[in-house]
Parts: sequence; C-alpha cells; structure tokens
Amino acid sequence: MSQVNQSSMYFDHAAATPLDRRVFSAMEPYLTELFYNPSAPYAPAVEVRRDYAAAKSQIAKVVGVKPDELIMTAGATESINLAFQSSGGHIVTTVIEHQAVLAAAAGGDHTLVAVNQKGQVSPDAIRGAITPETTLVSVAIANGELGTVQPIRDIAEVVRAVRADRLAGGNHTPIHLHTDASQGVGQLDISVARLGVDMMTLNAGKIYGPKQVGLLWAASPVRLLPLIVGGGQERGLRSGTENVAGVIGFAKALELAAQHRKHETQRLGALRDRLERDLTGAFPGSVVSGHKKHRLASHLHISFLGLDAERLLFALEARKVYVATGSACAANKGTRSHVLSAIGLAPEVADGSVRLTLGHLNTEDSVTAASGIMIEEIQREYDRTAR
Amino acid sequence: MSQVNQSSMYFDHAAATPLDRRVFSAMEPYLTELFYNPSAPYAPAVEVRRDYAAAKSQIAKVVGVKPDELIMTAGATESINLAFQSSGGHIVTTVIEHQAVLAAAAGGDHTLVAVNQKGQVSPDAIRGAITPETTLVSVAIANGELGTVQPIRDIAEVVRAVRADRLAGGNHTPIHLHTDASQGVGQLDISVARLGVDMMTLNAGKIYGPKQVGLLWAASPVRLLPLIVGGGQERGLRSGTENVAGVIGFAKALELAAQHRKHETQRLGALRDRLERDLTGAFPGSVVSGHKKHRLASHLHISFLGLDAERLLFALEARKVYVATGSACAANKGTRSHVLSAIGLAPEVADGSVRLTLGHLNTEDSVTAASGIMIEEIQREYDRTAR
Repeated sequence: MSQVNQSSMYFDHAAATPLDRRVFSAMEPYLTELFYNPSAPYAPAVEVRRDYAAAKSQIAKVVGVKPDELIMTAGATESINLAFQSSGGHIVTTVIEHQAVLAAAAGGDHTLVAVNQKGQVSPDAIRGAITPETTLVSVAIANGELGTVQPIRDIAEVVRAVRADRLAGGNHTPIHLHTDASQGVGQLDISVARLGVDMMTLNAGKIYGPKQVGLLWAASPVRLLPLIVGGGQERGLRSGTENVAGVIGFAKALELAAQHRKHETQRLGALRDRLERDLTGAFPGSVVSGHKKHRLASHLHISFLGLDAERLLFALEARKVYVATGSACAANKGTRSHVLSAIGLAPEVADGSVRLTLGHLNTEDSVTAASGIMIEEIQREYDRTAR
Repeated sequence: MSQVNQSSMYFDHAAATPLDRRVFSAMEPYLTELFYNPSAPYAPAVEVRRDYAAAKSQIAKVVGVKPDELIMTAGATESINLAFQSSGGHIVTTVIEHQAVLAAAAGGDHTLVAVNQKGQVSPDAIRGAITPETTLVSVAIANGELGTVQPIRDIAEVVRAVRADRLAGGNHTPIHLHTDASQGVGQLDISVARLGVDMMTLNAGKIYGPKQVGLLWAASPVRLLPLIVGGGQERGLRSGTENVAGVIGFAKALELAAQHRKHETQRLGALRDRLERDLTGAFPGSVVSGHKKHRLASHLHISFLGLDAERLLFALEARKVYVATGSACAANKGTRSHVLSAIGLAPEVADGSVRLTLGHLNTEDSVTAASGIMIEEIQREYDRTAR
C-alpha cells in the first residue's frame, strides 16, 4: 500500500489533531508581523485588538451565544477548572468524565452518577443526585473513550425543572448545567440554545486548531470567579496577555468544523463502520463498547478478549498504525481506565481494548490498509498466546 | 528616511515582542507534522514527549535549575497566580509590581512595600514588612514601566536571614522569595543561584517567543498547590495537554536571549542613551524617571511637563512611531499609572509621560528617525498648548 502515507494510519484523533493548514495560515500573520499587544493604544495594536474581537464574535456565532459571554482560556482543562471553582456548592457529574472534571469536582462536595453499560447517564439518575445545595451539574456531551453521546437536552430539562421548583419554593440557590463539548465539535450540534446548557467548554486542539487554546462560555446569569487574576483581560475573568494567534486559529478551526460537520460525520461514520465490520468479522468474539446509536462517528472502542492491548499497540506501532489503549491522559498511565470499569467491562475484556478515533488524516485507503494490518497483528497475538 | 521600515519605529518591546524567525522555525514542525499528544504511547508521540522534555532541560540549563523544578504555564500571569495561591500565608511585595502580582496578593493577607523616587525598594523595607506569618516575598527583577532593577540579591539575603532566625527559634513556617523576571531576561543575569531566589516567573512573549507561554520555577523545598487540576501533567502541578510548540519556542527564545545578552544589552543601552540625550537636549525641562544606573538598557521613561501624553502618542502613531504612555495592561486603561504615583511623580508630570522600550526591531537608523519625529511632534504639541 505504498500510496498510504505514514500519518494516514493515525487513529488517535481524540488525543490530538493536526493543525489544519487553513488554520495555520490564518494564525501565521499574528505569529509574525501582527505581534502587537492587543491592549496597546496605537493603531496596529488596535487593529490586532479588533481582529481578536472579530475572532471571538465568529466563535460566538458558531456556538450561538454573545461574544462577551466567552472567556478564552489555555484549553479545556482550564475552562473546566474555571467553571467548577466558581460553583461554590455541591456538584453533580458522572463517573466517566474526563480527569479534569473528576479532579476539579474532587476539590469540593460532589456526587458521581453511575452510567449504564453503554456509557450513558440517565437524566433520572442526575435528578436523583441533585440536592438542595447543588449548584452545578456537569456532563460531557460525548465520552472521549467510548464516543457515547449523552442526553444533554434531557438533562437540561431536569436542571430547568429543579431551578423552577427552587424558585417556586423561594430557594434562590442557582443551579447551572455545564457541558464539556470538546469531543463533540465537528460531529454534533453544539448550539447552546438547542442543548439547553448554561456553560460550555470547547477546545481548539481537538478540532484541528492550536493546542492550549480553549474557551468557557457562560450564560449571562452565571457568576464566575476568576482563576487567574491580573491585568483584567476577558472581562476580568481571565487575566494574561491574549493569545491572539491562538484565538484566531480557534475561530478558523471552529468555522471549518461547522462547515464540514454533516459531510465529515457521514464520511467518518462510514469509515468507522467499515473498520468495525472488518474487525468484528475477523474476530467474532470481539466486544464493541459504547452506544450503538448514540455514538460519535469518529469512535470505535473494541476489545479482543484475552489479548494484551499494550502489546498489540506496539505491534501496530511498528507497522505505523497508531491507536490508543485508553484515554491519553498522563494520570491514566499504567492503570485501568475508570471509564471501562464504570461500564462494567470485566478486567480481561478491558485489558484487551483499543480505542480507534478517526479524523481528517484517515481515508478509505488508509482504513483498508490499517484494517488488514490490524487483523494480521491481532491474529499473530492470538497465535502467540495460544502456543 | 525611506530605508527605515514601519516596524522599526516600534518602541514598545516591553508590551510585546515579535516572534524571532528562528523561534518560529523551531516551533513550526510541532505546529504541523509533529502534532501528537505527548502523553500518547506510540513512537511518534514518544518522540514529541522527548523533544518537549529536551526543551525543558534546555530552559532549565539557562536558568540554572533542574528540569523537573519547572512548571510550564500559559504565561507570567498564570505563573504568578500559581506561586501566590500556594503561599497560604502573609505576602510581602512592592507597590510598583505588575497588576498580576497586585491582584494575586489582594486575594489574601499582604503588605505592599513603598519604593523610592527611582522606583527601587530597599531590602530593609522588605525586612520591616515581614511578619512571623509571612510565607512569600515577591519582587520583580525589574519594573516594566521604569526599567528600574531591584536589589534582588540583597532581598534574598534578608529572606535567608529570616529563615535562619525562624529555624533557630523553632518556627517552621516557610518563607520564600519569588521574582518575576519577565522583563529582565536578555538583559540581566537570571541565574537563580546567583540571585538567591526560591521561585521565578518567566514569560516567552517578552523575549521574542510565543505569547501565552510561561513558566514558574520553584526550588524543590517549595510546596506548590495546583491552580488547574486534571490529567496530572507537569508533575500534577499544572494539568492540560502540553503546549509542545510553545515550549519548544520558549526554549529557543531563551537560548537566543542568553546568547546575545551582552551584545544586545550594550546595543540597546547605546541606542537608549542616544535617544535620551536627543530628547533631554531638545527639551531641557523633561524628566527622566527610573534609576540612572540600575535600569534596563531597553527602557526610557520620560515626562514632558504640561504635555498630554495621550495626544502625543496619537501624533506619533500617525507618523508610525509607536510608544506607550504606561503599562499596556487592560486594567490600566484611562487611569493614572500606579507606578508613577508610587514614585511620587506629580500628576502634571505623570500625565506627560511616555515609555520607550527598545528591542530587536530598533536600529541606529530607526532611532535617528524616531528621535527627529518625536522632537518635532513634542514641539508641535508645546506650540499648540502655548497658543
């Protein structure tokens, strides 16, 4: 398969995405000649400030919010920390959230709601976990490991009902719904009005934009407390000289993601289904995890019973096929995934799991090639262990 | 002066510096093909992780510390917030610090020490402000507005003496000295051993590196508390997918700054002195602020009595000469500089102040051109107000 180039067999788009060439081109002027501090008063700096504001407006339009409700951050982790530390009360979230959510929640009073075997949380379970002191509910729009999409709109209904009940009862404790939509952009509708959320975290690095660029959107009634204080940038909610190039790149990446969402989702879904058919066809005992229907088109989480996924990963790596065994978070190294435990995957199934996440780099040809290589290597592993 | 190009009359290097072309070249591969998540397990990602570690080692070498004592952040403001929130006790700092320091200190018990008319703080005054509850002393190596360099080594002596006294008296309350060296790199010796500090903040965006990239160095005995929790990156002290391109760029920028420090300091000092001579020669009533001897070579803070600096700034801008009236921080807009008040500059002097900060973009020719233009425009302003 000489026409398949090295990077095209990269199946870890959920961990990192390459910067889109168009995003890079949009950023380049701000990395070079337009280097001015957007807070400076002279014309070229004012121009940069305007371009920065325009990029925020563009982002706001895609998300369906007002530009001054956006706080630009250095990534999803910071956004989540900002949202959580502002809550000041009891937090409800799920057992399968990203480490950033779990760690931020652990800083205070919180409840982790269980999920079903497909990785979905039920709105009723969320309702059951909410106490009179709950001020924040946080559920990622889709799980990064399984791709399972959560019923955010139904959860939003629950939160709205609690809010209405509280107001009717004279309880003015605020309650807000936050969603980390980092893994959903480009495949799901992230319009906050349709989702019914009050806060949303987005990450440029997951959508072919620059790394360490993210945002927290918070509806006007949400009262945030800054995590980082100083020069008063981002309406006093996030100080530090603005990452102009990063935000310009984020806007471009988001625009492209929205533009190509339908087509790309179909394309990825078809490639993913093809890969799933090939692998489950060759290994009928394999287990596909996540929700069959409510799943990101990019995600395939598959377990080969009795196999050591780490060995497989290195065998595939030698043939330039790059896959993940779990979340790529540093904290997870060497330990079993908390997501797989939460959906009740037996250890011997979990230990043979790989996560394939498709994206721009994958083509029909690369999937054909990778699928063939994977089947060979899995078979070789099975043959080896059978001896 | 057709040979003087537009950007060469930029005199606001303390607010923002253009990315050095060599820095950009060093970053480019990590913005394009080497996009992998450094926490991922396959070979190309491991390579990226190694390059990231190598960049941190390179930075550590310039600062004279161990690589694992460095926490990479999204800029000086975040670094300062991280250092301050970890202190947990009374904080001593000066009245002329950057907004990030003043805001971070305001979050808890603190004392702001006065400075003299040159903008220098005395080690004795620092000593006088330290209480038995003081856990952190923070003084920027040089003031961003005036360029005045602080006697950090003498302050370090004071902190060491307090520490020794406490230990002798059985008091185990830690006390550490932090310095924001963002404005000093490239002109001062920032070796932490020679300075005698326990913590240091650095910023890539001030030394021809990328914006929103910084670090906090903390000596091993300093116990830090993370501001941003999650995946556990940077030894658990700063979570979030690493900004690989940014850190690679930071390392290159720091290497270049160290390499050219002596020559560049001489060059800038000569240009600055020349500008100072021209302006004070043409306007003998002008007032140069900051320390005559202990001043960054890049800085010239000069006041033209009775002039409206903002009007002057716009007159200069029309002729493509870019200067600042004060710190470029958003919080300072429309208000008189806290630094100028602190050194006792009368309001009518402060209001006629401009800050010229020289750097890579300035040449002999551009200084000649800018000096001529400034003299013309200042004279025009005086003529206008005399009418």
